[in-house]
Amino acid sequence: MSGDHGLRSAVPASLQVLQEHPNLQLSLVGDSNAIELELQQHDTAGALPARLDIVHADTTLAMDAPTAQILRGSQGSSLHVALGLLGAGQVDAVVSAGNTTALMALGRRQVDMLHGFSRPAFCSAIPVNKGFSYMLDLGANVDCDARSLHEFALMGTALVSSLEECEVPRVALLSNGREANKGDAVIRLAAEKLAADERLNYCGFVEGDDLHLARAELIVCDGLLGNVALKTAEGTAELAADLVRQSFASHWWYRLLGLMVRPVLGQLRVSLSAEQYGGAFLLGLQGVVVKSHGGSTPRAFRAALEQAVLCVEHKMVPRLAHYLDNQESAEL
Amino acid sequence: MSGDHGLRSAVPASLQVLQEHPNLQLSLVGDSNAIELELQQHDTAGALPARLDIVHADTTLAMDAPTAQILRGSQGSSLHVALGLLGAGQVDAVVSAGNTTALMALGRRQVDMLHGFSRPAFCSAIPVNKGFSYMLDLGANVDCDARSLHEFALMGTALVSSLEECEVPRVALLSNGREANKGDAVIRLAAEKLAADERLNYCGFVEGDDLHLARAELIVCDGLLGNVALKTAEGTAELAADLVRQSFASHWWYRLLGLMVRPVLGQLRVSLSAEQYGGAFLLGLQGVVVKSHGGSTPRAFRAALEQAVLCVEHKMVPRLAHYLDNQESAEL
Repeated sequence: MSGDHGLRSAVPASLQVLQEHPNLQLSLVGDSNAIELELQQHDTAGALPARLDIVHADTTLAMDAPTAQILRGSQGSSLHVALGLLGAGQVDAVVSAGNTTALMALGRRQVDMLHGFSRPAFCSAIPVNKGFSYMLDLGANVDCDARSLHEFALMGTALVSSLEECEVPRVALLSNGREANKGDAVIRLAAEKLAADERLNYCGFVEGDDLHLARAELIVCDGLLGNVALKTAEGTAELAADLVRQSFASHWWYRLLGLMVRPVLGQLRVSLSAEQYGGAFLLGLQGVVVKSHGGSTPRAFRAALEQAVLCVEHKMVPRLAHYLDNQESAEL
Repeated sequence: MSGDHGLRSAVPASLQVLQEHPNLQLSLVGDSNAIELELQQHDTAGALPARLDIVHADTTLAMDAPTAQILRGSQGSSLHVALGLLGAGQVDAVVSAGNTTALMALGRRQVDMLHGFSRPAFCSAIPVNKGFSYMLDLGANVDCDARSLHEFALMGTALVSSLEECEVPRVALLSNGREANKGDAVIRLAAEKLAADERLNYCGFVEGDDLHLARAELIVCDGLLGNVALKTAEGTAELAADLVRQSFASHWWYRLLGLMVRPVLGQLRVSLSAEQYGGAFLLGLQGVVVKSHGGSTPRAFRAALEQAVLCVEHKMVPRLAHYLDNQESAEL
């Protein structure tokens, strides 16, 4: 029900993904009348209903709902109902384009944490010069200790192993320099823990200007640093696009050339945009939770759905639980 | 003596700036033989020596010297001698392209802090969609309390007032959201202090993607966050430039168009590069200290010299001292 485009994104994206995954069962959670109306706009060919059902929810949380209201007044909202299905084990994954704060607060309330993890983290792909890296935490946890960063490294490793053809992703800690004496006390202690953990492929510190160099498949940091880094990258990409636009508008000859190179510059925008890489993952829960990116266009919503399918098929949650079963959680 | 281009940048930049500022007195600190040789390459027309002198220094600190070596073995190095002149009040400003760690360590040792400030901070311009904003701290101080962030806001306000035509720059704190409940406890306490200080024009929190929107002339954060944000912006700009290059190389027709639009894309690189905006400032000392940016090309070195002149002419250091004289430092 949420996101900039609501059902106009979610419904066509769902129908496409259902076609591509013949074993997928999908529940659309929200205002059943509105969902049925939207479904009528598409050619469902009568064949789909067997794998597509509608779960009614009375309300939708506003995208800008304050946290207190989310926790008090969310009962019966589409997000509350969907996460309830996940918490009860009736579904394996929830994909939403809704309010991030709500997704985090309700996710934590409605779905159990994996035994041994203390708090969930947000993880997302970031564009690098060859494909993607993943980074977490991106804002769920502002104050983190070294144990939290270690947990994030395990969560991210399970995610990247599930999504990418990369069995043991390289893990780096984000810091203010590559040398071992950089970072604050928490980051340096986390470095020791990561280096000592044989389940991880720890490769040291990376700096902000290393983020796009694909030096690691997974970048770990606290939520304040991660949020600032991610949004700074987005803002710089916007600035670069603006500057290109301004330059091409500066003279009639460049305006003409600008028309001819438009496909090239459009490609730049796509390569740097969040839209192509699906969603952000709320990790550490006993279920897959994906927040769709990119103004939740049909393309972005579909990518988020595809990622949720990959996580379930590649058993991300059992893999993460297995990490913890093999070791006392106190030893983390 | 330092930087990627050493005297080949510093000497021509110095001669240009001397020509433009008829009251400027300039000392070149370093290997006197090498400096004289380089001066002979340029047309000094015999008129300059009255305002240009050479101060000999036996050694030069390596760009990658470890901190321990800097503190033990720096005696007699060009940076040590230059900062000694500043500490003794014989010059008003030092400009260097050398090792940042050394500049910070020796700056703090050789030059007194302004009374009332507890630690120096690095401040630099960042490109925004219209001109520049300034950001500090950029890496000098990894662990900061609210009082430090408040000091940074005062230092930065004095700097921006001196460099730009902006009497009372807007100051923002970098955080993970614009709402007052974002940030960690230190950032939220700093927000209270900044809002209560009548010498500051505090305008709230900014996020990473606001950095380039010119919402504030001055952005304040701790050195870890600032370093990651600055380097992430640099890395993203590099990535954007790489992607444009790759796109234009993809087909003969685009390669041809690429040649024609080269001036436009070159302008993008300049707009996003550190080189055009001179240097980074080590603030809080009883003197002006500027670290030249951008691989210290002659252009970058000259911009750093021009900024040092502006800071002296506009009395940045006395202005900052005045802030503190008007108020017990304990009240900061």
